[in-house]
Amino acid sequence: MSKQVLEEQIKAQGEIVRKYKAAKESKEKIAEEVSKLLELKAKLNEDESLAAGPQKFTLKTPKGTRDFSPEQMALRNTVLDKIISVFKKHGAETIDTPIFELKEVLTGKYGEDSKLIYDLKDQGGEILSLRYDLTVPFARYLAMNKITNIKRYHIAKVYRRDNPSIARGRYREFYQCDFDIAGAYDPMIPDTECVKIVYEILKVLGMDQFTIKLNHRLLLDGLFEACGVPKDKFRSICSAVDKLDKSPWSEVKKEMVEEKGLEESVADLIGEYVQLNGQEDLVEKLLKDERLLKSKLAVEGLEAIKLILHYCAFYNISDKISFDLSLARGLDYYTGIIYEAVLAGDAGGDSEFSVGSIAGGGRYDNLVSMFDSKHKQVPCVGVSIGIERIFAVLEAKYAAANKKIRTTEVQVYVASAQKNLVEERMKLCNHLWDEGFKVEHSYKKNPKLLVQLQHCEEYGIPLAVILGESEIQRGVVKLREVKSRNEVEVPRTQLADEIRKMLQKSCMNGTL
Amino acid sequence: MSKQVLEEQIKAQGEIVRKYKAAKESKEKIAEEVSKLLELKAKLNEDESLAAGPQKFTLKTPKGTRDFSPEQMALRNTVLDKIISVFKKHGAETIDTPIFELKEVLTGKYGEDSKLIYDLKDQGGEILSLRYDLTVPFARYLAMNKITNIKRYHIAKVYRRDNPSIARGRYREFYQCDFDIAGAYDPMIPDTECVKIVYEILKVLGMDQFTIKLNHRLLLDGLFEACGVPKDKFRSICSAVDKLDKSPWSEVKKEMVEEKGLEESVADLIGEYVQLNGQEDLVEKLLKDERLLKSKLAVEGLEAIKLILHYCAFYNISDKISFDLSLARGLDYYTGIIYEAVLAGDAGGDSEFSVGSIAGGGRYDNLVSMFDSKHKQVPCVGVSIGIERIFAVLEAKYAAANKKIRTTEVQVYVASAQKNLVEERMKLCNHLWDEGFKVEHSYKKNPKLLVQLQHCEEYGIPLAVILGESEIQRGVVKLREVKSRNEVEVPRTQLADEIRKMLQKSCMNGTL
Repeated sequence: MSKQVLEEQIKAQGEIVRKYKAAKESKEKIAEEVSKLLELKAKLNEDESLAAGPQKFTLKTPKGTRDFSPEQMALRNTVLDKIISVFKKHGAETIDTPIFELKEVLTGKYGEDSKLIYDLKDQGGEILSLRYDLTVPFARYLAMNKITNIKRYHIAKVYRRDNPSIARGRYREFYQCDFDIAGAYDPMIPDTECVKIVYEILKVLGMDQFTIKLNHRLLLDGLFEACGVPKDKFRSICSAVDKLDKSPWSEVKKEMVEEKGLEESVADLIGEYVQLNGQEDLVEKLLKDERLLKSKLAVEGLEAIKLILHYCAFYNISDKISFDLSLARGLDYYTGIIYEAVLAGDAGGDSEFSVGSIAGGGRYDNLVSMFDSKHKQVPCVGVSIGIERIFAVLEAKYAAANKKIRTTEVQVYVASAQKNLVEERMKLCNHLWDEGFKVEHSYKKNPKLLVQLQHCEEYGIPLAVILGESEIQRGVVKLREVKSRNEVEVPRTQLADEIRKMLQKSCMNGTL
Repeated sequence: MSKQVLEEQIKAQGEIVRKYKAAKESKEKIAEEVSKLLELKAKLNEDESLAAGPQKFTLKTPKGTRDFSPEQMALRNTVLDKIISVFKKHGAETIDTPIFELKEVLTGKYGEDSKLIYDLKDQGGEILSLRYDLTVPFARYLAMNKITNIKRYHIAKVYRRDNPSIARGRYREFYQCDFDIAGAYDPMIPDTECVKIVYEILKVLGMDQFTIKLNHRLLLDGLFEACGVPKDKFRSICSAVDKLDKSPWSEVKKEMVEEKGLEESVADLIGEYVQLNGQEDLVEKLLKDERLLKSKLAVEGLEAIKLILHYCAFYNISDKISFDLSLARGLDYYTGIIYEAVLAGDAGGDSEFSVGSIAGGGRYDNLVSMFDSKHKQVPCVGVSIGIERIFAVLEAKYAAANKKIRTTEVQVYVASAQKNLVEERMKLCNHLWDEGFKVEHSYKKNPKLLVQLQHCEEYGIPLAVILGESEIQRGVVKLREVKSRNEVEVPRTQLADEIRKMLQKSCMNGTL
């Protein structure tokens, strides 16, 4: 494209942005147009830099991606540590796979969404794509290494060339956090543990107001069968049902009848069922339903639900479980139980904290066999924790509460009150590092005391040691509690012990 | 390419592999040819799968990449935890950046190596490339966010479309582990802390036999100037010097004279200097060297070396430091002090554990300004820990010592000695999870006791609780120390306390 054409396009796109802003269009719309503008500008800059030499271009991360600041990383790592501790509590191992796969590994696994896969440029050699989720690479890993039993978690980035609504916290590069159990075991025992893990994770993160919805793929299929849905419409009707968490039944029905060509009487029949939810009593009721009893699939699904609800009691998680016939989940590869955790009071709402589903998963017994030349089956069940949504909720909570997150773990700051004490500071830092403390000091030779103390407050460092000539001569230092600004004089020989004592006190009663 | 052509190529390549194997060529050579063969086969499969439908292709990770097994991940995470603890001890924050950048961000930063950058396919929108290191994204991050002070670490994967020798532990996807201090501070104070961090990390990993070589870019430039190297040859002569860690002086001199066209007398002069190494006394000697004294650059470099050696004493790391004039380091962007840690007895050797440089870095004061429209300078100094090499060394050590790494942290396994106790196991697991233990049990309804106990031994689980009908009736369980096979009967009400006691004992004296 010539420079002139590009410049004209930029001008035109600039006009659009200005108009949208003037018309007070939604932030999302404006952001989309601005992003187009930036892309055009980047293209121009690229052409120019190739032609002209000195680099000059829009400084940005790729569309749909972002950097994480120390504050964001501190929160993320705290949250991930808590989640990982739950995985470890249940004996999970972890693995890692490359960020890209042979393209053919991903081919045919994501249906229509395949168009969202990022491909690498063909630079000679293999044809590669960035991973789209962690489940397909996991299945490839199991098949390739002939692993038939594993309980593993995997937390890593995945890539979708979507046009994400960044305002709603969706990106093209984002973390997934999966826990899966592979192996031929007895019904519902590993499945129940997956649900237990979701329960524990949400509890440990202090997100107490949630419901875990359960359903079963066979029950849905059996239900469609029993209601007279033609077999070739099972999947499209299932994906319509999946929308019940966001749309009322009337709309879903309309989609079934008008878009997907289902007979209205059949849709009405489905409607009677998929709006039901409850506990064991609902299972018992449906197990006596004459229409469902005619479908072997439905009965099998109901028996499975009955068993998992029974097991949930032993894991003491029944209070949050809801058997919900509207739960369908999008992915094609599920073959058994499916589940999804939603934060309460959050269904389809437009509130700032609206996040929808926060974890979900189910059983997928046939995915691994797609990679095995002899189609050997490795049954799997797993759950994906929606950590990006969890981060977004917690970030918003922190921001609302005006809470500051510490980005470092420094315990003691070594400050100097006078000039020419950098060597003394270095010696003292080294002593305290040797004693096992997390310590820092200024990288300036003669920093101002005020600046040093401000640094402590800014970074939430609990203690500061202040060096001065007279103290050095007397073999003492000032030890300052940053928050209270209390200072005590401590002999150098007792400094480490005194620091330990004060840090312990601050742990015990949170005064620092 | 037609299927027929591909099949002929595969046949021919197959012949090559067979010949190499018959001729007992080196493993590396054979592996390279096998990899070519696999690529051809993958291409064929891809063509076929597009044409024929059912998926059938070589199950592999992309060339130069690999999966990490639970054992590898356990070792990696242990090592990374130790390294991160050193970074935190020094007050570092962490950030993250996207795995890909606008291509133009990477353009012009890596010289000839730019050809190794992975590009993403142009699928409409921006032109993107996978990151090649963590330093350039860091500089982009600083410039973009106008950050002028930060002390951060970043551990993440980077990508180089190299033809790596996998036998020597080099891959196309690998981790980098960087620590950098950005900010305008006083000479050598942050620089010394970087060196201190390298020292602490190698110590904490038990890799005690190392040397940290120091040099200074200005000293090298000054030396070349003083010896009469033409200015346009500085960089190529510098890269020749860089090879002194692997080649003898005679070869390096040959390269300078024959390949790079340096006068022999000039090369000889350089040779007198670059083979020197020592401590403060060498600095003092060179500060009296008449030839060097003529170069302002050389004197500035020497004064800097003098200061950092002086500071190293306060951090108690002088014992491992060597001022080494042969150290040049490849990257163009260094502007001041440079350093590199090498494991002792390892220089260029062919031994199994040969790893060469294990950490390195230096000062780069001008990189950030390349991204700033006003070319505002943000001075930086940093170090990159060669964690892939560290992992390789430690993996080899573990393998040689026949040491097994635990891949889970399970403390207690709940087993059943008879049939139909799965619900009792679940209840007990739940009780122990509530008590904070890491617990697992079999996902089979009626597993064999022997299989359960074998699982404990295989995974190094220290304790097993064994449930039986008679014990349940009496309100007791058997608690088994897996290693010693000792069993005691414990009342259910005292089980948690007893487990705590036994775990503590095992921590104290390592008997479990």
